[in-house]
Amino acid sequence: MPALRSWFNIPWGSHFSLANIPFGIISSPSSKNPRVAVAIGDHALDLEAFAANNGFSALSIIQPHQAVFSQPTLNDFAALGRPIHSVVRKYIQDVFNVDTTYPEVLKTNSSLQKQALLPLKEIQTHLPFKIGDYTDFFVGLHHAYNCGVMFRGPENALNPNYKHLPVGYHGRASSVVVSGTPIRRPHGQILLNPAAEKKEPIYTAIKKLDFELELGAFVTKSNNMGEPVPIAEAEQHLFGLVMLNDWSARDVQSWEYIPLGPFNAKNLGTSISPWVVHADALALFKVKGIENDAGVLPYLREKNDENVYDIQLTIDLTSTSGSSATIAKTNGRNLLWSYPQMIAHHTSTGCNLQVGDLLGSGTISSENDRSGFGSLLEQSDNGKVAIKLSGGEERRFLEDGDEVTFSGVCGTDEEALVGFGTVTGRIEPALKL
Amino acid sequence: MPALRSWFNIPWGSHFSLANIPFGIISSPSSKNPRVAVAIGDHALDLEAFAANNGFSALSIIQPHQAVFSQPTLNDFAALGRPIHSVVRKYIQDVFNVDTTYPEVLKTNSSLQKQALLPLKEIQTHLPFKIGDYTDFFVGLHHAYNCGVMFRGPENALNPNYKHLPVGYHGRASSVVVSGTPIRRPHGQILLNPAAEKKEPIYTAIKKLDFELELGAFVTKSNNMGEPVPIAEAEQHLFGLVMLNDWSARDVQSWEYIPLGPFNAKNLGTSISPWVVHADALALFKVKGIENDAGVLPYLREKNDENVYDIQLTIDLTSTSGSSATIAKTNGRNLLWSYPQMIAHHTSTGCNLQVGDLLGSGTISSENDRSGFGSLLEQSDNGKVAIKLSGGEERRFLEDGDEVTFSGVCGTDEEALVGFGTVTGRIEPALKL
Repeated sequence: MPALRSWFNIPWGSHFSLANIPFGIISSPSSKNPRVAVAIGDHALDLEAFAANNGFSALSIIQPHQAVFSQPTLNDFAALGRPIHSVVRKYIQDVFNVDTTYPEVLKTNSSLQKQALLPLKEIQTHLPFKIGDYTDFFVGLHHAYNCGVMFRGPENALNPNYKHLPVGYHGRASSVVVSGTPIRRPHGQILLNPAAEKKEPIYTAIKKLDFELELGAFVTKSNNMGEPVPIAEAEQHLFGLVMLNDWSARDVQSWEYIPLGPFNAKNLGTSISPWVVHADALALFKVKGIENDAGVLPYLREKNDENVYDIQLTIDLTSTSGSSATIAKTNGRNLLWSYPQMIAHHTSTGCNLQVGDLLGSGTISSENDRSGFGSLLEQSDNGKVAIKLSGGEERRFLEDGDEVTFSGVCGTDEEALVGFGTVTGRIEPALKL
Repeated sequence: MPALRSWFNIPWGSHFSLANIPFGIISSPSSKNPRVAVAIGDHALDLEAFAANNGFSALSIIQPHQAVFSQPTLNDFAALGRPIHSVVRKYIQDVFNVDTTYPEVLKTNSSLQKQALLPLKEIQTHLPFKIGDYTDFFVGLHHAYNCGVMFRGPENALNPNYKHLPVGYHGRASSVVVSGTPIRRPHGQILLNPAAEKKEPIYTAIKKLDFELELGAFVTKSNNMGEPVPIAEAEQHLFGLVMLNDWSARDVQSWEYIPLGPFNAKNLGTSISPWVVHADALALFKVKGIENDAGVLPYLREKNDENVYDIQLTIDLTSTSGSSATIAKTNGRNLLWSYPQMIAHHTSTGCNLQVGDLLGSGTISSENDRSGFGSLLEQSDNGKVAIKLSGGEERRFLEDGDEVTFSGVCGTDEEALVGFGTVTGRIEPALKL
């Protein structure tokens, strides 16, 4: 898609082109109240200020609902539903278009431009949603396979259920934080010598701190308990996506996870990018996911098999000494199941999803390509192989002071990019206990 | 403890004696607004009405906080902290005491009695807390052992980590409902023939619907992410307990749970009793739990090994034909780990617990006594043994129309009971999909 032209200066290569219009929560030096905004180029359009100054005067459908833009989370806006989001996004695209239908709203209104268009570098972003429940899936097949090989060998790498249902588990909602929040190296109960016959755990600062490259999706429509969401309707329950880093304590995980799954290994922090890219903006980038040769049951079968997104994903690591490296590149298409399939399965036993629930994809890795693996566990083969940074530094797991940054973007520079910006987090040393 | 005598008629054998004073959320025909109350005998004392009519005039410490009693959940009251709860409970006990220090507050104030003392049978109870996250532990050792024997044999019944840490997993908060809410038999992806070499799942109304007898605890004090709660302080993070039924789809569970734990098998509904018995009321009933011969790490070691509660627990089942039976009796002391230990472990990697979080104990079963097992899975040995009801009916798993009721009580009739009342739920037939 050729770039939409704007009267506003949107820098070449910006993730936040006119084709994107992602939603987030901001505060600024002049107003500390968190409120709704969209990102456009190097700026945020403060939708509270925009609405208060007749920005939506030409859009009667949103006028009874303008209070949603003054909320400290996107939940109320999301609850208005996909059709309203579409109208709002298209209207904002029109307002910024070089040939806008409504020049008086913003293009020729320098007073409102000054008030509502805030440089991103001067604002603070916040967690975009009040998250009720956070579910983490495991639908990155190559990641699941890599982990399976490591712990069970190539013959039994994938469990028998893996291709029949989107495997997932309940995660911890309270420890989901916005990009930039420091992550403290946790203490945890671990085995220093897992291979020993006698298991003698200790409680200590963990050794195997890792990241997981994931996508996260927010739910925009609730379903009642006891009432599954049919697969054909599931797309309407999806608000949009963020980048997600599911920080993981691998030494805690390997000791605790049998039989009930990961618990403390995963609740030390989960970081997400602040700008939620709407499902409408991503629709142009739908592609086929990984072929499922197991036969998909009707309640999970979609009409269109282009159901996942072509998102270029990058992982960068920078150490305190400034050594850095792009340590992985992969793509959002490396998923066995789509978000509508995850929603249909999650609700298949009647579970009530609610507006603002977060659904992680699980770690995304490329196939058979170490430089495309989405976790250090896989890249280092559980600590056996060193990953090179610049300046001779190496990593097997994360060290104190390391900063991990994921970015994700759809499209090419020649066209309008639809990007996520970044999610980043820096490791603080463990507390002295 | 001999019963405290009251000027108010508290029926002999009531769970809600003067020694109890459990907190809950009610609405009534005269005021549909959910608000805070305590249960006393056959009545609820509406604390919003009580506060508005100078009920707390003699208790200056609570006066700046009286708005908490008009809230639709207990979260704000809980956040005031254990010392304030103690003062409020003791004050209410004094107000109801036959020799009350404050007769004018209620004993001789028939107008306020009429307004604020509402018969339980005329009010509606609601979910007591806004639950942020729900965690379900697995610390009922005999249950864990029974399940282990069923699936792995007696040699490997307990996993190596079991006695070193309170095993738990993240549950689903949105599907926690108050007692009396109907539970619909879910559809789910299951194997009709799990033993077959080729796994051919189908999506159908589930066959193995079960209950799980648990206690649930609410968190009353938040900790920051990255900052573990020391074991010595953990008791102060505990508000009180409810009875909890963690409805379970066993056929879904056995197919889905490897490797990430139970998911859809457990998010179809979790029922809790409406009146939260405060930790202060339970303190008199502390007893030793199950001896842990594994050596407890210092971060989980408590000074006092009387750390679990002597609660008599009963399970009743009634079918649509009226057949019924008390199908199990067990005791809350059958736990390997205490709630302070669960809190210390849960936060040991820095997980931030928040006011209103719910912590399930895991299923509680007696040792080596089928009539004391807390789930049908155990009682029927996964469907092999029939459980007798009256009138010749039998059960292996739950049938449509079955009503399951748990009750729990501390003390004896000769003394003042501290009881939970009941948590009940009735199975509705599956939807036609």
